Amino acid sequence: MATHIHLHSLPSPFSMHRGGRLYQASLAYETWGRLNADKSNAILILTGLSADSHAASHDAQDTPGWWEAMIGPNKAIDTNQWFVICASSLGSCKGSTGPCSPMPNSGEPYRFSFPDLCLEDIANASMDLVHALGIEQLHAVIGPSMGGMTAQALVLENPGASRYMINIAAAMVSRPFSTAIRSLQREAILKDVNFKNGHYSADNWPTEGMKLARKIGMLSYRSAEEWDERFPRSLRQVPNKPFGIEFPVESYLEHHANKFVHQFDPISYLYLSRAMDWFDAHAHSQDNGNPFVGCGLHGAHIIGCRTDLLFPPHQQKELHTTLNAAGIDSHLQIVDSIEGHDAFLVDTDTFSPLIREALHGGQRHPGALSE
Amino acid sequence: MATHIHLHSLPSPFSMHRGGRLYQASLAYETWGRLNADKSNAILILTGLSADSHAASHDAQDTPGWWEAMIGPNKAIDTNQWFVICASSLGSCKGSTGPCSPMPNSGEPYRFSFPDLCLEDIANASMDLVHALGIEQLHAVIGPSMGGMTAQALVLENPGASRYMINIAAAMVSRPFSTAIRSLQREAILKDVNFKNGHYSADNWPTEGMKLARKIGMLSYRSAEEWDERFPRSLRQVPNKPFGIEFPVESYLEHHANKFVHQFDPISYLYLSRAMDWFDAHAHSQDNGNPFVGCGLHGAHIIGCRTDLLFPPHQQKELHTTLNAAGIDSHLQIVDSIEGHDAFLVDTDTFSPLIREALHGGQRHPGALSE
Repeated sequence: MATHIHLHSLPSPFSMHRGGRLYQASLAYETWGRLNADKSNAILILTGLSADSHAASHDAQDTPGWWEAMIGPNKAIDTNQWFVICASSLGSCKGSTGPCSPMPNSGEPYRFSFPDLCLEDIANASMDLVHALGIEQLHAVIGPSMGGMTAQALVLENPGASRYMINIAAAMVSRPFSTAIRSLQREAILKDVNFKNGHYSADNWPTEGMKLARKIGMLSYRSAEEWDERFPRSLRQVPNKPFGIEFPVESYLEHHANKFVHQFDPISYLYLSRAMDWFDAHAHSQDNGNPFVGCGLHGAHIIGCRTDLLFPPHQQKELHTTLNAAGIDSHLQIVDSIEGHDAFLVDTDTFSPLIREALHGGQRHPGALSE
Repeated sequence: MATHIHLHSLPSPFSMHRGGRLYQASLAYETWGRLNADKSNAILILTGLSADSHAASHDAQDTPGWWEAMIGPNKAIDTNQWFVICASSLGSCKGSTGPCSPMPNSGEPYRFSFPDLCLEDIANASMDLVHALGIEQLHAVIGPSMGGMTAQALVLENPGASRYMINIAAAMVSRPFSTAIRSLQREAILKDVNFKNGHYSADNWPTEGMKLARKIGMLSYRSAEEWDERFPRSLRQVPNKPFGIEFPVESYLEHHANKFVHQFDPISYLYLSRAMDWFDAHAHSQDNGNPFVGCGLHGAHIIGCRTDLLFPPHQQKELHTTLNAAGIDSHLQIVDSIEGHDAFLVDTDTFSPLIREALHGGQRHPGALSE
């Protein structure tokens, strides 16, 4: 698998949105399919907070990626047709430079000396990679969740960067409810006794804080409706200690939290989480005008999910309306899935045709509720 | 204020729903108005998890109660007409016997040796108080939130206990989403380094766990919609340390968490929170029949709020439908308030007429959405 990961060196220094600079920074990335002769078939995928560059497997021996069902030969993002790029986000802990990377001068991890990170930085680093691959303009940028905000940052910071945008389960700005969830996740990590202001180690890991952070996040990833179906009360177990795990939803949260806790770096999590809260597409507008005027998009497909608690449908509607008002041919599709914010990851039957058609300029799919 | 609090001694032993026994236990309670000659004007109010017996002030010098706007002369629950009773829940830390009370034999706090607590125990202890006051049958039991589940336990455990039930922002059973929220609250407390398996002290209080528990709860008390109105991004502040408080919703959560942290006992919180998750009205039915058959209610008013995340409207609808199917004249009212689960506490203009009319056998108020 590792042989499919490439490293792109960013300009040194790499100037950041809030004024910081990174030296000798790099992005880990993977590609699928082949760039065509006129370099017009490139698609950039921008990831959610905890995902990495491994969006899909590269061959039968490879491990599945986080969007395996969507990307590959003859799949919705058809790698026989498209040249697909996915990088690990700048600031993440999945191979690209982030707060747990060694500083070039000392070899010590950056920790909190890592500069303020914005989604604009993730977008601009990704765009630098795109240019380095010889691509002048993307056919499409696709971003789910945090990636949907990063996709907006990309087209706002780099006019003409992409002809199309497919923006999934995201919003133009972080609203207080989703900020509150992320704030409590950060608090759980920061307050863990093992966090020690970032000086944790593999032996003294802020395990409980990371677990609680993951569990708080999971409150918003699916939906109450889906959990009603998934967890019948009949599955209650006898706890092995007072106030131990008893309810099926508790086992589920514990299982996923345990899986997550060592898969992500705590400080990286803090930086990326805050970057989402800082994002505001409106801040890119001149004089409170429409920020998307002049961004060069030919069209956009904005996809939301009826049961998404983190980025509910009215937020995709706001993005759609704003794009249309900027003269961009935007299509809004709110899918009727019970799988909430995560629907794009799991409800392949609904999302595959939507994304396939969006990449071909298709308009609306009868399976989705259009507005 | 303290002069208005009375103490009712429960039978010793007091037998509990899951088999435990309490000795020399008592309930702290307050009353308003006067019991009429035929003892037909009594109303019992069952509280939410963190509320106490002080539902309203008793005179102009008194401090306001948690439902001050609703209870008093000429208010919706008119104390010129009704004799109103409110007790601090058994198991709470507000004057009634609970896990932080001294055990009669040793004087040491019960801590985890407090017997398993169910909402049925809170209901039955309250009913013992009602009987001790010489009341055979309540005119109405009113319960919001946890109190709404306790009100169901009361009429299910004590057939004929009340002629009417006003059940607000509650459900027949705890669903996985609300259980998950409560489970994470419990986890935050249990994992606090100062919790020490219940051997915390005033000097070593599980402050951070209690704060985080409160904040997690607050995610579900109002609504994303209300927070959008309340917290404009323009109110962002400059944090005084990395990842310090910056967003207005963070200040709000911090403020309320700090207020709460010493107002409630951590173990009491665990016991009451779990009691909610254990509650299941269906478990009171014979052979999976309708649990409310034979409970003796003449009528019920079930009130929910469109934006309630913790107990969303379909859960009040289930209660309403079940009551009707049991031959009880039930009325369902889903109010269109943006104040979520807490609407009953704050949206007085909407709730006052609903509750006033419900107490007089009134049917539907034009201000609410009826189903």
